[in-house]
Amino acid sequence: MASDVSSPIIPAVIIPRVGIGTDVHAFADGVPLWVGGLRWDGYEQGLAGHSDGDVIAHAACNAIFSAAGIGDLGTHFGTDRPEYAGAAGVKLLGEAARIVRAAGFEIGNIAVQVIGVRPRIGSRRQEAEEVLSAAAGAPVSISAATTDGLGMTGRGEGLVGLATALVYPVAPRG
Amino acid sequence: MASDVSSPIIPAVIIPRVGIGTDVHAFADGVPLWVGGLRWDGYEQGLAGHSDGDVIAHAACNAIFSAAGIGDLGTHFGTDRPEYAGAAGVKLLGEAARIVRAAGFEIGNIAVQVIGVRPRIGSRRQEAEEVLSAAAGAPVSISAATTDGLGMTGRGEGLVGLATALVYPVAPRG
Amino acid sequence: MASDVSSPIIPAVIIPRVGIGTDVHAFADGVPLWVGGLRWDGYEQGLAGHSDGDVIAHAACNAIFSAAGIGDLGTHFGTDRPEYAGAAGVKLLGEAARIVRAAGFEIGNIAVQVIGVRPRIGSRRQEAEEVLSAAAGAPVSISAATTDGLGMTGRGEGLVGLATALVYPVAPRG
Repeated sequence: MASDVSSPIIPAVIIPRVGIGTDVHAFADGVPLWVGGLRWDGYEQGLAGHSDGDVIAHAACNAIFSAAGIGDLGTHFGTDRPEYAGAAGVKLLGEAARIVRAAGFEIGNIAVQVIGVRPRIGSRRQEAEEVLSAAAGAPVSISAATTDGLGMTGRGEGLVGLATALVYPVAPRG
Repeated sequence: MASDVSSPIIPAVIIPRVGIGTDVHAFADGVPLWVGGLRWDGYEQGLAGHSDGDVIAHAACNAIFSAAGIGDLGTHFGTDRPEYAGAAGVKLLGEAARIVRAAGFEIGNIAVQVIGVRPRIGSRRQEAEEVLSAAAGAPVSISAATTDGLGMTGRGEGLVGLATALVYPVAPRG
Repeated sequence: MASDVSSPIIPAVIIPRVGIGTDVHAFADGVPLWVGGLRWDGYEQGLAGHSDGDVIAHAACNAIFSAAGIGDLGTHFGTDRPEYAGAAGVKLLGEAARIVRAAGFEIGNIAVQVIGVRPRIGSRRQEAEEVLSAAAGAPVSISAATTDGLGMTGRGEGLVGLATALVYPVAPRG
């Protein structure tokens, strides 16, 4: 069992974990439209909800919680943490990333697809990616798709965020 | 071609594979509600289907089959394997994990989000995670989301399971 | 700071990235049905769209773009590249894979689930996987699911492709 000092040290292989998360909010009159950490002016409707309804940021939170195996938005930002009631999506994502790191994981990347007819995400994609990546402390990529007029997204009733994320275990911090 | 014994052995990098899987069942009267490997009492409706309709367990099966590239629930538990007709979702997940390992993969993790208005997954999340993780022999994380009243999940017509999984190649067993 | 030549070289750990992508097209009369890189004869309807409506190939493109963090189908095959207007899904996937590699990534695998009532994917799954894997230069796995009669896929209005992919950084080519 004695170790041969000339033997190479084989580093332990790190097995990452993947997660998935969604978020859906209905369009509503009389509220500003916040998606991807950005305010979108020039649209008649925003997204309803107790929060800002930012389906991209919320789906990203759910995906990293899912990958780390520590629940979801309701677990962490529910009624027992009233200081997050109505918080901006980008603020929630920053706090979610902190919680995931405290649980012993680093975030490899987060990828979110937003599904719906508006806003035109492509026009400000890189700006949104920069805001959310800064909040998460990890690369957040954003893409967009429509549903060819079908279903609730096709009818313009709401907007869907669909996210996956990769995290990997590290020594827990502090 | 002689190997220099003093050279470090660079371990081959293991490239994991990811997969995705969904499952949807309609709520129906007169059947018990099974989700996440647990029976949920106190609800008026269960999930319809030839099986127990456990969308979390079924989505998890589909995700690991998808990651391993070996088909789906229909491929493995179709009409040619009548012994699995009506089987509990947790039994299917155990058998799916066995099939994936026999195909040469280990399961890194499985992450499932259940989307719909009931049951209240958060109240028994850890219990469900333990049952499914034991069946799969790998960590299964469960999270929950709603769709803000939109679509068939928002109307309470059915429940959706959406899963991703990471597997990695190992020497085939047996 | 001098390196000990007898020390093993610890290879840098490669952290892969994951991505997600969807595509939805409506069924329509009078067009051929192309899905998974294959033409399906014997069905009354095909998929509508400026392209061939191949939701499997399109979702795969979106997933690798998402993983690499370089946008989506609209970013790369939009109106500024008219040579891809109406292109077959399998051709788009080949070009998408080339773009992802030019951005400095290798593709580990792509996994697509097609959700809807037709065609019967299982009957030609391996054939479709071979065609798409050849186009992508990486393993593409295909699986299928239905939605128990619910929603727009359950009503047979359209077909959904849902994909995830894993990519990992390499030295950029060229």
